[in-house]
Amino acid sequence: MSDIQRLQPGPLYSGAVIHGGTVYLAGKVSSDSSLDVKGQTRNVLEQIDATLAECGSDKSKLLSVQIWLTDIAAWADMNEVYTAWADADNKPCRATVESALAAPEFLVEIMCVAAR
Amino acid sequence: MSDIQRLQPGPLYSGAVIHGGTVYLAGKVSSDSSLDVKGQTRNVLEQIDATLAECGSDKSKLLSVQIWLTDIAAWADMNEVYTAWADADNKPCRATVESALAAPEFLVEIMCVAAR
Amino acid sequence: MSDIQRLQPGPLYSGAVIHGGTVYLAGKVSSDSSLDVKGQTRNVLEQIDATLAECGSDKSKLLSVQIWLTDIAAWADMNEVYTAWADADNKPCRATVESALAAPEFLVEIMCVAAR
Repeated sequence: MSDIQRLQPGPLYSGAVIHGGTVYLAGKVSSDSSLDVKGQTRNVLEQIDATLAECGSDKSKLLSVQIWLTDIAAWADMNEVYTAWADADNKPCRATVESALAAPEFLVEIMCVAAR
Repeated sequence: MSDIQRLQPGPLYSGAVIHGGTVYLAGKVSSDSSLDVKGQTRNVLEQIDATLAECGSDKSKLLSVQIWLTDIAAWADMNEVYTAWADADNKPCRATVESALAAPEFLVEIMCVAAR
Repeated sequence: MSDIQRLQPGPLYSGAVIHGGTVYLAGKVSSDSSLDVKGQTRNVLEQIDATLAECGSDKSKLLSVQIWLTDIAAWADMNEVYTAWADADNKPCRATVESALAAPEFLVEIMCVAAR
């Protein structure tokens, strides 16, 4: 077990789990659900930056990203914020699909796997 | 190829695949689809325990979990069963979203990645 | 960083990322969206074969697969093409759920993790 580290413990899940050279992040939703989809995306990406930093990683080491939008029509707005944030030379794999999220006020959720 | 082990072969997929120190489980649905969402969650988690044991792992080594609910309104009921089951000191990352599943009688599906 | 390789760079994501012995593929949709779900599935699986080959892998080394259908009623049609394509002795784990995809003409999206 010594090779598994768990960060940001919460009632339902850990915010991040490190195993070997791989970092798994929980699906993140905006801490401010009054924001529009661009604002929520920005909020989520800031949480991802902070969590990756805690794990000794950063966005240039992202491997794979899953994005859920409650309304796929928000795809272009989410992408505008996402591509401004992404490391242009080190883009992870990605899939973006539509799903309802844990509460209706959440417009976007992002879950990542990164290298350390 | 000697470093990939496949368990629980089925017509569509393997129930578990082990590669290096990482165990991938197929998305599990309840073997008894007459149960309510709490019962189906319990049934799925029992299958996950059994499959992890076959792989030489257990729930304390879970890294990342994806949960799909056919109705996100069942979130609290699913969580009640999930948190009673989870290893409180070793919670994996998690994302829970709403999606229709392979057949309408399935109310919850859970897919995991664990360490061995 | 020397242990991360990124292939098929695009505006939003890389088509594949290799880290250690693990290959992550982006969610693939059909390059010809006029096809029916069987044709789109075939098209996506051909892209996966080509991308795995670029990564020094192949379908016999697939570990875990996620499939999204815009209409879960297409499950049997997708499976007919998928099982004809899959390596019968080396089936990956899998989960298949319903989600709307980036554009309404896409009927199926598949995202994979493989060993190298």
